[in-house]
Amino acid sequence: MPAPRHVYVAVIGAGGVGKCFLSQLSQLSTRLAQDSRAPTYLSLVLLARSSKVLMPEGYKPISLSSWESDLQASPAKVPSLPEIADYLSKSGKPVVLVDNTSNQDVADSYPSFLEKGISVVTPNKKGFSGSYDLWKKIFGAASNGQGTGGFVFHESTVGAGLPVISTLHDLIDSGDEVTKIEGVFSGTMSFLFNSFMPVGGGGGSFSAEVKKAKELGYTEPDPRDDLNGLDVARKLTILARISGLDVASPTSFPVQSLIPKELESVGSGEEFLEKLPAFDGDMDKLKAEAASEGKVVRFVGSIDVGKKQVKVGLEKFDHSHPIAALKGSDNIISFYTKRYGSNPLIIQGAGAGGEVTAMGVTADLIKVLKLLH
Amino acid sequence: MPAPRHVYVAVIGAGGVGKCFLSQLSQLSTRLAQDSRAPTYLSLVLLARSSKVLMPEGYKPISLSSWESDLQASPAKVPSLPEIADYLSKSGKPVVLVDNTSNQDVADSYPSFLEKGISVVTPNKKGFSGSYDLWKKIFGAASNGQGTGGFVFHESTVGAGLPVISTLHDLIDSGDEVTKIEGVFSGTMSFLFNSFMPVGGGGGSFSAEVKKAKELGYTEPDPRDDLNGLDVARKLTILARISGLDVASPTSFPVQSLIPKELESVGSGEEFLEKLPAFDGDMDKLKAEAASEGKVVRFVGSIDVGKKQVKVGLEKFDHSHPIAALKGSDNIISFYTKRYGSNPLIIQGAGAGGEVTAMGVTADLIKVLKLLH
Repeated sequence: MPAPRHVYVAVIGAGGVGKCFLSQLSQLSTRLAQDSRAPTYLSLVLLARSSKVLMPEGYKPISLSSWESDLQASPAKVPSLPEIADYLSKSGKPVVLVDNTSNQDVADSYPSFLEKGISVVTPNKKGFSGSYDLWKKIFGAASNGQGTGGFVFHESTVGAGLPVISTLHDLIDSGDEVTKIEGVFSGTMSFLFNSFMPVGGGGGSFSAEVKKAKELGYTEPDPRDDLNGLDVARKLTILARISGLDVASPTSFPVQSLIPKELESVGSGEEFLEKLPAFDGDMDKLKAEAASEGKVVRFVGSIDVGKKQVKVGLEKFDHSHPIAALKGSDNIISFYTKRYGSNPLIIQGAGAGGEVTAMGVTADLIKVLKLLH
Repeated sequence: MPAPRHVYVAVIGAGGVGKCFLSQLSQLSTRLAQDSRAPTYLSLVLLARSSKVLMPEGYKPISLSSWESDLQASPAKVPSLPEIADYLSKSGKPVVLVDNTSNQDVADSYPSFLEKGISVVTPNKKGFSGSYDLWKKIFGAASNGQGTGGFVFHESTVGAGLPVISTLHDLIDSGDEVTKIEGVFSGTMSFLFNSFMPVGGGGGSFSAEVKKAKELGYTEPDPRDDLNGLDVARKLTILARISGLDVASPTSFPVQSLIPKELESVGSGEEFLEKLPAFDGDMDKLKAEAASEGKVVRFVGSIDVGKKQVKVGLEKFDHSHPIAALKGSDNIISFYTKRYGSNPLIIQGAGAGGEVTAMGVTADLIKVLKLLH
């Protein structure tokens, strides 16, 4: 019978995804501790958000039930990322850093955590979709890359908890040849176009749908942060790099922005929403064009692996195409491969939301625990 | 720098899936041996089919290029399964048994292989969909069950290489609550009904579509082995058990057979096909009924986890339902869960065929290699 083992978890970020993750971590740690054959004791030893930190001396576990008030009551002195890495690396136990932020600085520090043997799991796209140099440093340090440090997993950076990244790795590792990846990668864009131009006809003006999406909480505080296409471009960058393309950055390929040029520099999201209706004519024209061909318009991303082409923008689809039939704010990702032939392997479902994003992070943490013997 | 490691692979079965697997194994072993950081040397040390075996003394590697003629030229004396388990367990190296048969005896022997520390990966449904007792013995022995023996993975027992089983495990392990699983689980049934009653109208008689499917190689030699629904029932049994239901056997819940009672006992598949047209009226009636409701008929399986109900048979679907829109011989599996809400997590694509089935086996082998430190 194997001895019980202890693994330390450090969490940065306690917003929407972070809260859901901490609740899932609480469930998971209870379940793993009760495994009579080989119990694993997971201890949360560090919890930080922008201005607060819990870091009890001697790696004492943080309560997973009262963390919110404990964090509120904590002093505001947050150590620097190098200080955190240093502290965690001296624990004498395996450590997993869970980055639930969307912060670039935290992402920039992954290589130094990994080199110290600390594993990293995260839904933060910044480390994998920014400079290609950072990507190379991360996987150059990680044991599941070319290095000998900690493990790194980031399933939730694309399609939240949907098994997109793991499936792409399985296809490639088992020797299949991925020829094309195509899909709707943004819950916001999915909702917008499924509402603006549903297959059965109907739909409000584009500006009205953007307003509705914002009211329902489906957009960023400033909807331009969704409409500029950068979020989709980041996800495509990640999948393209896994597929072997040396994509320099998420702005190194064509990305169509849905922000009218004239509104790029208006001061606030509110002002943008006020002025957007003046541009509804352009979107109505696109809609009418597609309708005249018996098609619908959707905001998609695609990677042609052979041609090394990545692009993001509006495209027209037949009513019978799975992308046209999408519902709500679902994502859909199609993998065209040599083995799968003309009918792609398709993964579909909610691609945003705290619970499903945290689920991908928790599943990644479980993967790390299995690899950490 | 970690030392290079050796892992032995033993393969039983060298038919359609087996051949594809051996070709993928050849690619994989070349790739892993070239990993400059931590090379892994995979050696095929045993290859058996019904009446032939290659088992070179001293675990000498079998050639992955000339195995077919070497096997042909080998003497016909095949050792028993206990002899094979005993031989492999004495190698002093980690061993993975790859069962590419659909044989019950091989499946019955998994517990004894696992107990000896030998890992098992397989597309063979028999071990996981037969008696519940065998299921319990397998997972009672395996390290990724309640035991301390080898690891067992069987992704390709449902949906071939589609990530169905791994996704279900991720959902459950991360604490989601799976409420319902529904889908088209048979490539043959998918092809038959997509052709017999396509969404756009048309389609030949049912018997003509069965004949066509057989000619295209989409059915078993005797098409009744597909039409009896048992293959789908086996897959549902596996998913239901992973979901926590104690399903006694694949015949312990309602399974609709599409074989007319009168033809159950006719001697051969040929005779069955000759006599099937006499029963086309029944299927035409079903088709007309569904059409009058604006629906199509599909052969599906479903698991209601809360109600502990599993069933397999014909159901009607709206034209806009993803199950109705399926193409070719694709499978589709929908997971309804608490986190995913009203829109399920959907996985779709080819669910049969040598290459994609072998792909699931190869991906499982890679998983075992990662776990075998």
